Amino acid sequence: MDAATLEQALDAIRTRAYFSAFPESPSPRVYGQDAAPVGQAAFEAWQGAEFPVRTPGSRGTVATESSPFGITLGVRYPHVTGDGLDELIRAARAGMVRWRDAGPDTRAEIALEILDRLHQRVFELANAVMATTGQAFVMAFQAGGTHALDRALEAVAFAHAEMTRHPATMVWERPAKGEPLRMEKTFTVVPRGVAVVIGCTTFPTWNSWPGLFASLVTGNPVVVKPHPRAVLPLAITVQVCQEVLADRGFDPHLVTLAAEAEGEGMAKDLATRSEVRIVDFTGSAAFGEWLEKHATQAQVYTEKSGVNPIVVDSTDSFRGLTTNLAFTLALYSGQMCTTTQNVFVPAGGIETDEGHKSFEDVGAGLAAAIDKLLADDARAVEILGAIVNDDVRGRVERSGELGEMVLESRAVLHPMHPDAVVRTPAIVAVDASTVGYAEDAVYARECFGPVTFLVRTADTRQSLDLMRRLGHARGAMTAGVYATSEGVLDATREVALDIGVALSENLTGGVYVNQSAAFSDFHGTGANPAANAAYVDAAYVAGRFRVVQSRRHSPA
Amino acid sequence: MDAATLEQALDAIRTRAYFSAFPESPSPRVYGQDAAPVGQAAFEAWQGAEFPVRTPGSRGTVATESSPFGITLGVRYPHVTGDGLDELIRAARAGMVRWRDAGPDTRAEIALEILDRLHQRVFELANAVMATTGQAFVMAFQAGGTHALDRALEAVAFAHAEMTRHPATMVWERPAKGEPLRMEKTFTVVPRGVAVVIGCTTFPTWNSWPGLFASLVTGNPVVVKPHPRAVLPLAITVQVCQEVLADRGFDPHLVTLAAEAEGEGMAKDLATRSEVRIVDFTGSAAFGEWLEKHATQAQVYTEKSGVNPIVVDSTDSFRGLTTNLAFTLALYSGQMCTTTQNVFVPAGGIETDEGHKSFEDVGAGLAAAIDKLLADDARAVEILGAIVNDDVRGRVERSGELGEMVLESRAVLHPMHPDAVVRTPAIVAVDASTVGYAEDAVYARECFGPVTFLVRTADTRQSLDLMRRLGHARGAMTAGVYATSEGVLDATREVALDIGVALSENLTGGVYVNQSAAFSDFHGTGANPAANAAYVDAAYVAGRFRVVQSRRHSPA
Repeated sequence: MDAATLEQALDAIRTRAYFSAFPESPSPRVYGQDAAPVGQAAFEAWQGAEFPVRTPGSRGTVATESSPFGITLGVRYPHVTGDGLDELIRAARAGMVRWRDAGPDTRAEIALEILDRLHQRVFELANAVMATTGQAFVMAFQAGGTHALDRALEAVAFAHAEMTRHPATMVWERPAKGEPLRMEKTFTVVPRGVAVVIGCTTFPTWNSWPGLFASLVTGNPVVVKPHPRAVLPLAITVQVCQEVLADRGFDPHLVTLAAEAEGEGMAKDLATRSEVRIVDFTGSAAFGEWLEKHATQAQVYTEKSGVNPIVVDSTDSFRGLTTNLAFTLALYSGQMCTTTQNVFVPAGGIETDEGHKSFEDVGAGLAAAIDKLLADDARAVEILGAIVNDDVRGRVERSGELGEMVLESRAVLHPMHPDAVVRTPAIVAVDASTVGYAEDAVYARECFGPVTFLVRTADTRQSLDLMRRLGHARGAMTAGVYATSEGVLDATREVALDIGVALSENLTGGVYVNQSAAFSDFHGTGANPAANAAYVDAAYVAGRFRVVQSRRHSPA
Repeated sequence: MDAATLEQALDAIRTRAYFSAFPESPSPRVYGQDAAPVGQAAFEAWQGAEFPVRTPGSRGTVATESSPFGITLGVRYPHVTGDGLDELIRAARAGMVRWRDAGPDTRAEIALEILDRLHQRVFELANAVMATTGQAFVMAFQAGGTHALDRALEAVAFAHAEMTRHPATMVWERPAKGEPLRMEKTFTVVPRGVAVVIGCTTFPTWNSWPGLFASLVTGNPVVVKPHPRAVLPLAITVQVCQEVLADRGFDPHLVTLAAEAEGEGMAKDLATRSEVRIVDFTGSAAFGEWLEKHATQAQVYTEKSGVNPIVVDSTDSFRGLTTNLAFTLALYSGQMCTTTQNVFVPAGGIETDEGHKSFEDVGAGLAAAIDKLLADDARAVEILGAIVNDDVRGRVERSGELGEMVLESRAVLHPMHPDAVVRTPAIVAVDASTVGYAEDAVYARECFGPVTFLVRTADTRQSLDLMRRLGHARGAMTAGVYATSEGVLDATREVALDIGVALSENLTGGVYVNQSAAFSDFHGTGANPAANAAYVDAAYVAGRFRVVQSRRHSPA
């Protein structure tokens, strides 16, 4: 990775054109024959081992992970508790001035080197992400590896652009009577303070790297607080950061790993410390809102949860609609913050290229597309992955209580991981008109995992009304619409702007509502309750540093 | 004002080179013979009148201003109380969608037209600022008029740059087997919600316009809550905004005036409403911190208060030092958030171009420079202006209790405004070494107004240590240093970066530590307790809007 890559990334974030710096195919043709086995062996070497990363303030180790696939983990990490936070924070701050003085270009260059070395370990990372999250391998390789690297690079590029929009030094000359007034001015980017990144179980790298790299490249030390069930991908990340920092003569503790046992609640203690000035969080709405309210000494960037809608009004490709949506609902068992939860369909059905389809026809078409996609167990598990925890399993198992079953969830035996809990998506039909105010309806709460509601509305007008009300009340990370009329599309765009959600229109091909392309698509908007920030825009990076100037007379 | 002006402003915020769009001299040679008398007459027409601006939700009127100069005010404004806030907020939001749909270019163009019309009323504004704040006329014309217009234009330019860094629409094409994937994408700037600007007594326009225009141009309706003692400049502002908006076919209530009686506490109610998503505040540290802690549903930009230091180590122009500093301390009776409060001087004195100067010599030199600057009452009042309120008067009158008087404050009779309270600066010497921990010292608290502490330190090392400790604890908007050695300058720069304060080095000419140049100097940094934001950088504007995208398949 070199300066040219950064230039390409800088171009892409401006033009929003297609760009990727990290090949997404794990094929041997791209990465060579050895890459996969070497990466897997590297992952396996961690199983049951003590992970060799040093965290100041830690006492002993903690092992907290258990794989949704039943893959052995048992990796031990330095255990940080409240007692050690003083030491941890002190160590995090120790290298801050030197890191600040390195300047934006050097910091960006070092960040690129870290990304490069993470990329060299992408198969190891993919195995770690797969084992901890339940993502199938290819998805773990992409969402946990190459796509996450692209998002991290995007954050580095955006931060570099913002840090260098002013000159580092210049001479200001003001016309005056007689001699002009000349001042030499220096503008220095300074960090805000310690940054804390709070990771999640399902996307430990994809959701943590943008904040981690945005904070680091703007000069801040970063304490990485992984979710206790998905530590290894971030432990590897911290290890690589520390190696590169040390190699380049900087304090390796500019990036540290703060692992804890489940339920110890260190995130609250960390996030509210006066030295902590930036918090990045992915996780529950409840804790995200707590952080926004209580970590007021810090800039807080949250991605919480939403209730993602698709409004189905009509289509010129019923087959495209059902096929596209089936993949969205099946991918990683719907355990993405971007997966559609509610599909709003008029009670009277919809017009399609295959003629009129009743509400039931739409449900049946979608069910058939899912059945077809997942007919072969060996192929199904590579799309579904595994259910990440018992809460999700419970929800899918009890989904029959929520309404009328359109498609029952089915347990799939994973051919290679017999202990894995694998479930196909359930579709539950509910009636919008019987539930009174939308916020009380079952479909109006986030139902994370492979349960989708087919919501029977009076008409598209009501579908849009529900999309709007739920968007304001609960937020959404994504939204979709299928309509052949410009009027309906316009009305949906208007609702999407009103609730501040990214809209995908008539997706019938190889682009899915739950996927976003780094450098082009923003992930989240920050404009509704689902998230207060987007990956990656200027607002995401500009508050992570400050500019401090000095000025002095300058001889002519 | 036209597109070329915006282009120049956009250039200037990038290069930080000298730029001003609004001539700062009120001379008839610049503005014509009639401008001054016509502007004064326009101001006088408001005296005792009901100001013709409509505020939805108001009941009756309120008149709250009294001039530090004793100039008649008695202007009545629509009175907003808690009961009317629902109606006010509803009216503010009514025009939001149309304003959003106008897009960044149109909004910027309309903002420029507003600035143009405010500029046409700059003499009227100067009279209003003078009468309400106690600023002398030329300062009111500049700081309250032309310089404030430049800062507003800077905010418009920065916001425009950030809103347009992505294309409004583009086609994304991803290589794929067979046909490439082509998606048409649209990126729309959407507002955050209602913005509230909370004004202050001393700089009603200069401190309110950057936030007002940054919020407005990014698509947000703005409720302007003036300080009860400085309403008229903002009432004129709102009137102009409403006129231009209405002329251009937009809802005039996109900008509204929310006047209240002193002590009614509407700012708290307004700032914490769920519809309010942006708050700009200038005022006390206590209320600024309250807003940061409690208005967590909003982006909060605060300018509070600090304790501004100058470290005096040595100089090659003792005369330049004393003359420059005398003007800083005298200007507007030190009632600027940027005025120096503490001058740290080693007990052993300093080396200068006039030979060694003892601590007492430094004080005497500074006192003499102030005496000389203010020797003539008629000239003095044009620098000092009037004392803004009884609190400030009380502090200056009791300044003798704080230490050893180096220069007594003197009451000056204003030749044209006999009721004006005019005071020259007091200088009080205190001993750093007797006060224990710095935060307990008298000089460690903000002493707003014309009281300067000459702080006797053991040496420059202690001066820098106090600068650092006070900077972290209390914050600072400005800092200065006088030193002939690069070592001392470097050490001071390091402290300035550490506490995040703009540093002025060896100012001995026509640039003053308490003044910043729009487009080049940032006002504040957001990096210490004095303020959480700077005028104007990307962080100041980027959080005021969000980008919402939509995407659809695009035929080849």
